[in-house]
Amino acid sequence: MDENIGFIGTGVMGASMAGHLLQAGKKLSVFSRTRAKAEPLLSRGAAWADSPAALAKTCDVVFTIVGFPKDVEEVYLGASGLVANMRPGALLVDMTTSRPDLAVRIASAAAEREGQAIDAPVSGGDKGAREATLTIMVGGGREAFDRALPLLQIMGKNIVHQGPAGSGQHCKMCNQIAIACNMIGVCEAMAYARKAGLDPENVLKSIGAGAAASWSLSHLAPRMLKGDFAPGFYVKHFIKDMSIAAESADQMALDTPGLDLALALYRKLAAQGGEDSGTQALCKLYA
Amino acid sequence: MDENIGFIGTGVMGASMAGHLLQAGKKLSVFSRTRAKAEPLLSRGAAWADSPAALAKTCDVVFTIVGFPKDVEEVYLGASGLVANMRPGALLVDMTTSRPDLAVRIASAAAEREGQAIDAPVSGGDKGAREATLTIMVGGGREAFDRALPLLQIMGKNIVHQGPAGSGQHCKMCNQIAIACNMIGVCEAMAYARKAGLDPENVLKSIGAGAAASWSLSHLAPRMLKGDFAPGFYVKHFIKDMSIAAESADQMALDTPGLDLALALYRKLAAQGGEDSGTQALCKLYA
Repeated sequence: MDENIGFIGTGVMGASMAGHLLQAGKKLSVFSRTRAKAEPLLSRGAAWADSPAALAKTCDVVFTIVGFPKDVEEVYLGASGLVANMRPGALLVDMTTSRPDLAVRIASAAAEREGQAIDAPVSGGDKGAREATLTIMVGGGREAFDRALPLLQIMGKNIVHQGPAGSGQHCKMCNQIAIACNMIGVCEAMAYARKAGLDPENVLKSIGAGAAASWSLSHLAPRMLKGDFAPGFYVKHFIKDMSIAAESADQMALDTPGLDLALALYRKLAAQGGEDSGTQALCKLYA
Repeated sequence: MDENIGFIGTGVMGASMAGHLLQAGKKLSVFSRTRAKAEPLLSRGAAWADSPAALAKTCDVVFTIVGFPKDVEEVYLGASGLVANMRPGALLVDMTTSRPDLAVRIASAAAEREGQAIDAPVSGGDKGAREATLTIMVGGGREAFDRALPLLQIMGKNIVHQGPAGSGQHCKMCNQIAIACNMIGVCEAMAYARKAGLDPENVLKSIGAGAAASWSLSHLAPRMLKGDFAPGFYVKHFIKDMSIAAESADQMALDTPGLDLALALYRKLAAQGGEDSGTQALCKLYA
């Protein structure tokens, strides 16, 4: 394929993902707010673009994974953004976890420019990005999905088309809601164990493999017990995701008391200075 | 071994568990509030005892798995109960999920009679009981644990000594707390998926194997989606367990907002007539 591929956002996730595209022999242009973060890719042969607009003008397919919905909005819908400058027929793929309603707006703005835009947020963290085993949840037209699929397969494994524009983001919200509520349970179970004078490691031996089993219990409870609060996934990003989920639920008139509780607890943790910790730091509230 | 083994409580769980002891060639006496439930065991060679007292007088080791803490209290500490009538040196093993503080009282009452009592609640449900794969969480003296172990191994697999009397119950509470909070997340994720117009089965394909993965998401969400609310584990029993956990947490001055929310939601479900449903029926509150 001689398509020009663009990649915007070369943070921890994006750098690995773009690296896989390079590795697969794709012709890659990159833009990142902080050029230094793109240097390893540039030294491996990627071209530098000075702005989203410059990148859009030369690329057939553009991937983005940036920070917050406001960054997505600027990169896509700003005056020097992707949509205003996209090639006719180009495909834009936002892999940021962002607002479903923004994804819908971007998709229709791209359609007006005779292009395509899909939302394709991921889960699997830095490890999944590094090992190209990300789960990718896609919202958008079927044709655009089919077109993106061979490229997404270079970055991930479990790639599911969830429905029209915004559906990828909605699916990611389901993921975050399930995690959020479960994290409360993991923290409360471990706090209860300590208070009751049990050895929490021993408790994990009893409860880790039955009906209470979960990824968080297996992977994050042991870090809690060690006092290892290094970020696999940042509290501040989790709060962003949960805020989006809570707003979307509100718009759909869905009560989510569990999500609301998790969001309140994580905001309390952030207010106590925990926003740059990993999500397992929630257990500090129970100490 | 020529020990006489007693078994009290031949409901769904107890009938399977006692059956494994018989199968292993143990000399077994049984008592159950409803004699009819013990008949299959009697026809396989178990002896019938007319009361806990009658059983205690002839047995060296007695297992119990009854309904609620008040049943445990009556069976153990009532005038015609196990402790008042136990043989010197006998071992009593309560496998009911019950109050940790009651387990402590029973253990010290048994010690006063020169016997031993341990708490050994289980998880794994009717399937675990049938297949002898139960997780068994044990609280009590080490010597009593070692004495019970070969018999417990006939009924279960993952058998861990969690500490002194009451510790088995406390560990079971940790298990139930983790499940309770997670169930909220599973329900809210599935409700969100539906409201957002996604296909929830498809959402499970995306979120079922990553950081949101849990036993409940894999095993109970599919039942929710099918509208299958048959009890694997009864709402009314889960409410009992969560109530004990909440009271224990209260006694230890531990705040558990997630558990409290789950308990409130399940009580609401029970008030709407759901107490004989399986715990997955919680999703009805989000319909």
